[in-house]
Amino acid sequence: MTRTEIPQILDGTHPTAPRTVALAHQALIFASGLAISVETIPGLPVWADRVLLQFELVVLLVFTAEYVTRVVCAERPLRYIFSFWGMVDLLSCLPLLAFVSPELAAVRVLRLLRLVRLLKLLHTNAALKRLELALHSIRGELAVFAVLACVVIYIAGVGIYIFEHDAQPEAFSSIPISLWWAIVSFTTVGYGDIYPITAAGRVFTAALLFVGLGVIAVPTALISSALIRSDLSATRDKTLHDDIEREVRKELGPVKRKPTRR
Amino acid sequence: MTRTEIPQILDGTHPTAPRTVALAHQALIFASGLAISVETIPGLPVWADRVLLQFELVVLLVFTAEYVTRVVCAERPLRYIFSFWGMVDLLSCLPLLAFVSPELAAVRVLRLLRLVRLLKLLHTNAALKRLELALHSIRGELAVFAVLACVVIYIAGVGIYIFEHDAQPEAFSSIPISLWWAIVSFTTVGYGDIYPITAAGRVFTAALLFVGLGVIAVPTALISSALIRSDLSATRDKTLHDDIEREVRKELGPVKRKPTRR
Amino acid sequence: MTRTEIPQILDGTHPTAPRTVALAHQALIFASGLAISVETIPGLPVWADRVLLQFELVVLLVFTAEYVTRVVCAERPLRYIFSFWGMVDLLSCLPLLAFVSPELAAVRVLRLLRLVRLLKLLHTNAALKRLELALHSIRGELAVFAVLACVVIYIAGVGIYIFEHDAQPEAFSSIPISLWWAIVSFTTVGYGDIYPITAAGRVFTAALLFVGLGVIAVPTALISSALIRSDLSATRDKTLHDDIEREVRKELGPVKRKPTRR
Amino acid sequence: MTRTEIPQILDGTHPTAPRTVALAHQALIFASGLAISVETIPGLPVWADRVLLQFELVVLLVFTAEYVTRVVCAERPLRYIFSFWGMVDLLSCLPLLAFVSPELAAVRVLRLLRLVRLLKLLHTNAALKRLELALHSIRGELAVFAVLACVVIYIAGVGIYIFEHDAQPEAFSSIPISLWWAIVSFTTVGYGDIYPITAAGRVFTAALLFVGLGVIAVPTALISSALIRSDLSATRDKTLHDDIEREVRKELGPVKRKPTRR
Repeated sequence: MTRTEIPQILDGTHPTAPRTVALAHQALIFASGLAISVETIPGLPVWADRVLLQFELVVLLVFTAEYVTRVVCAERPLRYIFSFWGMVDLLSCLPLLAFVSPELAAVRVLRLLRLVRLLKLLHTNAALKRLELALHSIRGELAVFAVLACVVIYIAGVGIYIFEHDAQPEAFSSIPISLWWAIVSFTTVGYGDIYPITAAGRVFTAALLFVGLGVIAVPTALISSALIRSDLSATRDKTLHDDIEREVRKELGPVKRKPTRR
Repeated sequence: MTRTEIPQILDGTHPTAPRTVALAHQALIFASGLAISVETIPGLPVWADRVLLQFELVVLLVFTAEYVTRVVCAERPLRYIFSFWGMVDLLSCLPLLAFVSPELAAVRVLRLLRLVRLLKLLHTNAALKRLELALHSIRGELAVFAVLACVVIYIAGVGIYIFEHDAQPEAFSSIPISLWWAIVSFTTVGYGDIYPITAAGRVFTAALLFVGLGVIAVPTALISSALIRSDLSATRDKTLHDDIEREVRKELGPVKRKPTRR
Repeated sequence: MTRTEIPQILDGTHPTAPRTVALAHQALIFASGLAISVETIPGLPVWADRVLLQFELVVLLVFTAEYVTRVVCAERPLRYIFSFWGMVDLLSCLPLLAFVSPELAAVRVLRLLRLVRLLKLLHTNAALKRLELALHSIRGELAVFAVLACVVIYIAGVGIYIFEHDAQPEAFSSIPISLWWAIVSFTTVGYGDIYPITAAGRVFTAALLFVGLGVIAVPTALISSALIRSDLSATRDKTLHDDIEREVRKELGPVKRKPTRR
Repeated sequence: MTRTEIPQILDGTHPTAPRTVALAHQALIFASGLAISVETIPGLPVWADRVLLQFELVVLLVFTAEYVTRVVCAERPLRYIFSFWGMVDLLSCLPLLAFVSPELAAVRVLRLLRLVRLLKLLHTNAALKRLELALHSIRGELAVFAVLACVVIYIAGVGIYIFEHDAQPEAFSSIPISLWWAIVSFTTVGYGDIYPITAAGRVFTAALLFVGLGVIAVPTALISSALIRSDLSATRDKTLHDDIEREVRKELGPVKRKPTRR
């Protein structure tokens, strides 16, 4: 095992080495995310707090060791340090400072950046690649849709402010709050924290939501069509290939058969 | 009727026997589910409680009789007993114990396992098979999507905890609670039990929900494209078949026609 | 104009007569629906109530006149009277009784049945026919999906009852109430009238909603694929037709050309 | 630069001139929309109010200057003034009157019309054109769907009024209010401001929402199929083109080759 193979083993992209190390690495990141989540639950027993703290220390030491290893083993250490993943790795070691001085506790959250690494394992995944290609092929349509959706949401927010502000000066206190309402309504989440109560506001909302049904349909339709288009073009390429093969067989066929017929 | 045909008749998979027994069996399971549901309604009259109790006893006796029959009639009784469906059948008889000793009332709920059997009737259904095949062909994409959705929900939950915990220490009391909020919001259910109130939390949520519109679109698009792909490949196979037939006709045609032309 | 043409003119299906009468008829049904809706608004001024009452009387007289006309003009009056549309027409005249004796006011609502007639105008619509054909071609899959959705909702309802009943005996008071919650949650409506508050109930709900994202995707995917399949088969028929034409041209072509070459 | 090129430069449709002016124009409209939104926030410091007011004055002067320029530079000034965009441009200058007499403050909102112009930049966008074509090809189906959805919502609204009015005379006070509930429920927004509480009302709602799952699926499916159909027809055109090319090659090929074979 050469020095440059170590990062590959850590990433699970090494051609021959087992992926055990990479999987253990991912599991540690996952467990770390779980621990961060659990330790915020109020009223945990003291022993649980202590266990979680010790686990956090272990995780951070492993992460720091990993970072040092990666810097040492990188072909171009400086390039790694200033790369995107290098920054992520460095930032996820920093929470160790919180153990040195307690007022730096906020940096613990940086460890969450590690979660981004989970996506790395998926990077060589064929299914994800197909999804990415499909989304890439419709980036124009998605951008247009996003702009249209923003304009519709802006108009909805300003409109509801005009209709509802006088009736509910507390709920629809400003246009930014009305925009919050518009987004919550158009994504059909509908928390129910603010909603129109005037007749005009309700007619306006009803009309917009009715249109909204169609608006929400567009991204689904776009992604569906992109996925199917990639199938279609694969099918056409296959058909074209078959056509060409057939043509060639036709050209050669008679030549071969003709002598046997005469 | 031989001994081994009895389970087939109970399942409705017997080639010649009428499916009456199987349908009655399914109806009994359905009625049993309904009875379980009805008997939890508070303030039922005493006679209704009594009727439901007696019905339950009858159902359990039928289930027990069925279980004994299946064990006796199975080609390999032990294999049946330890099979998945054997366990389900046994567990759905156990609530009979609740009639013997009242403190075992909780086992009644085991009868619900019977509902799983309802799915068995669908097993030979062609429409379900097509759906299953389509879902199977995109299991990779669906798994990738599930992982991505989990990461997005985790990031959303942690993010909203950071933004809202100080403003609403009761509502967003811990990250697990925030994850609950994130799932309820991303699936666009939006109960409205907890929701962000700070400006930062709302901007964060609005941005995530906007992206969420696209995220929710992905599984629909994947399933659509899988169903259509199966149509497409069927079409292509048909077209290829036509092409081959045409080729063969072409090869044979001239041979037949040529003599008549000369 | 013969007697039997009158119903066709009323329905707008007459080949030559203008559709004015049919459109006026539809407009009257629409206005009638609007009037029924408006007259329930509390606190209407007395004059508005009077106008609406008079309008209602006019509408009912028109409907009654129409019913009599249809019976008289029908080729087989008895067959019309006992047909589906005949019953609808009769029932929508009955509210006239409410003017005779005030205690029959409830029959007014029968006039709403007229709204069903609005669908009749769409009956000859090509777009609707295409939609109907597509839905018809996947009726098997939709039925399977409906059964699966029912089973999932039943399991969700019973599950949440087990988890939440002790914590919220008021909200989740019985399994039927829990089923109401399950439907409101799975359709992603989420009124927020009842929702889980225990950790177990929330984890259970979160898991189910996560699956629910995929479940909701299925009917959309089915309808999409059905609509596209009808396009595909149209395309294939067109392609096959082209192929046959080409074959024929090929067969005839050489015969025509050959003499000119020799 | 000729006089008639100035509007093209402002619109960013000039063939050679850089689009800087058009982009700055768009940015100003966007900033103006943001300012309108921000100035409604209650409790802004005095200096912020003053800055926003001055910004508004600048924007209005720019808009007025632009309007005058467009009128002067238009080939047919009168035609521009009475065109749709001419009216929009004029209306967005009018808020200047609010600075002259404070009681005209309401006209400020007219400036929002400017946002409509944002859509103009998208007009030459290929992605939007594809979306428009797809939507145009299914306008018949979408209209039928809209009518069907309206009828279903009307029936739902009247139905829930009948079921819930007696139990909740405040919430379901009239049919128009019930229609508001029906739209909020069918679009799966579900604010939770009003919801059924009677058993009959809930069973009715549950049944309708179950159907609603399918109804919501239709527009998505329609748009998906329209987008894919446009791909399909493109594919078929391509295939037909290939076929014709092949035919031609076939016709010419033997002629060319035949002499070399003999």
